[in-house]
Amino acid sequence: MINEVLNKELVEIEATAVKYLTAFTRANIKDVMATYADDGVLMAPGMPASIGKDELLKTYTNVLEAVNFNMNYQIKEVVQTSGYWGFVRSSTDGTEVNKITGITSLTSYQELFLMRKSVDGVWQIARYCTVMISSKVK
Amino acid sequence: MINEVLNKELVEIEATAVKYLTAFTRANIKDVMATYADDGVLMAPGMPASIGKDELLKTYTNVLEAVNFNMNYQIKEVVQTSGYWGFVRSSTDGTEVNKITGITSLTSYQELFLMRKSVDGVWQIARYCTVMISSKVK
Repeated sequence: MINEVLNKELVEIEATAVKYLTAFTRANIKDVMATYADDGVLMAPGMPASIGKDELLKTYTNVLEAVNFNMNYQIKEVVQTSGYWGFVRSSTDGTEVNKITGITSLTSYQELFLMRKSVDGVWQIARYCTVMISSKVK
Repeated sequence: MINEVLNKELVEIEATAVKYLTAFTRANIKDVMATYADDGVLMAPGMPASIGKDELLKTYTNVLEAVNFNMNYQIKEVVQTSGYWGFVRSSTDGTEVNKITGITSLTSYQELFLMRKSVDGVWQIARYCTVMISSKVK
C-alpha cells in the first residue's frame, strides 16, 4: 500500500515535468505557467532568475516570442524526498530557430526540477534550473 | 526548541554551500569533493552531467586545471524541505582566466544546490546546477 502511494506520487511528479517540457516545446505559455507554483523560480542561461508568476510570464513570453523550440526530452531520474517535495532530472536536445535571424541551431540542455506538492495535492515546479550543454549552428 | 533545531540545520545547509563555493574559487579540489555525497551530480554549462565521485573528480580536475576562477558569491535562499533534504540558491560573479590563452572574462552564474543530510548527520551536495548568466572578455 505504501509502495502504491509512493509510486502514484512518483508518477505525478514525473507528469509535472513532462507537462512542462511538452508545453515549453509547443510554446504553450498557459500550460507552462500552470506547472509552476506561485513562488516558482526559473534559472535559465543568459538571464537573471525569474521569481514568481509575474516575472515567469514575462520571461516565457519573451523567450517563446524570440525562438521556436523543437526539443525532445529524456527523464533521467524522479525522486520523492518527503511528503511534499521531490525532484526530476532530465535532458533535452533538438533545434532552435531564431525567429528574427532565421538561424537554426542544434542545442542540448540538462534540467533539474525541484517539485513541491500544493495544498490542493498538485505537484508544481518550485525551482527549475536549465543548463546548456551545447549549441551549434546547423 | 524546534526553531533552534531548524535554525541550526539551516546554518549547516548554508555552510555546505559556502564551503563548496569557497573551495571552488580557491581551486581546492579536496574540499570541493568533500562537500559532495557519493552519488552527487553536477550539472554545469558545456558538459554532460557528472554523476558520482569518480566523474566529479575528473570534471573538477579538468575545469580547475584549465581556468583560474576568482568568484564572489551571494546566498539568495536557504530552505529545509524535510529532516534530510534542503536546498540553497545563490549567485556568483567574478573573473575567469583561461590558463592556456591568458584571456580574462567577467562572468556571472546562478546556482541551485539540492542538499541531503548523510547518515552521519553531515549536509552534503546531492544535486548541483550552475547556470551561466553572462560572460564577456575583459
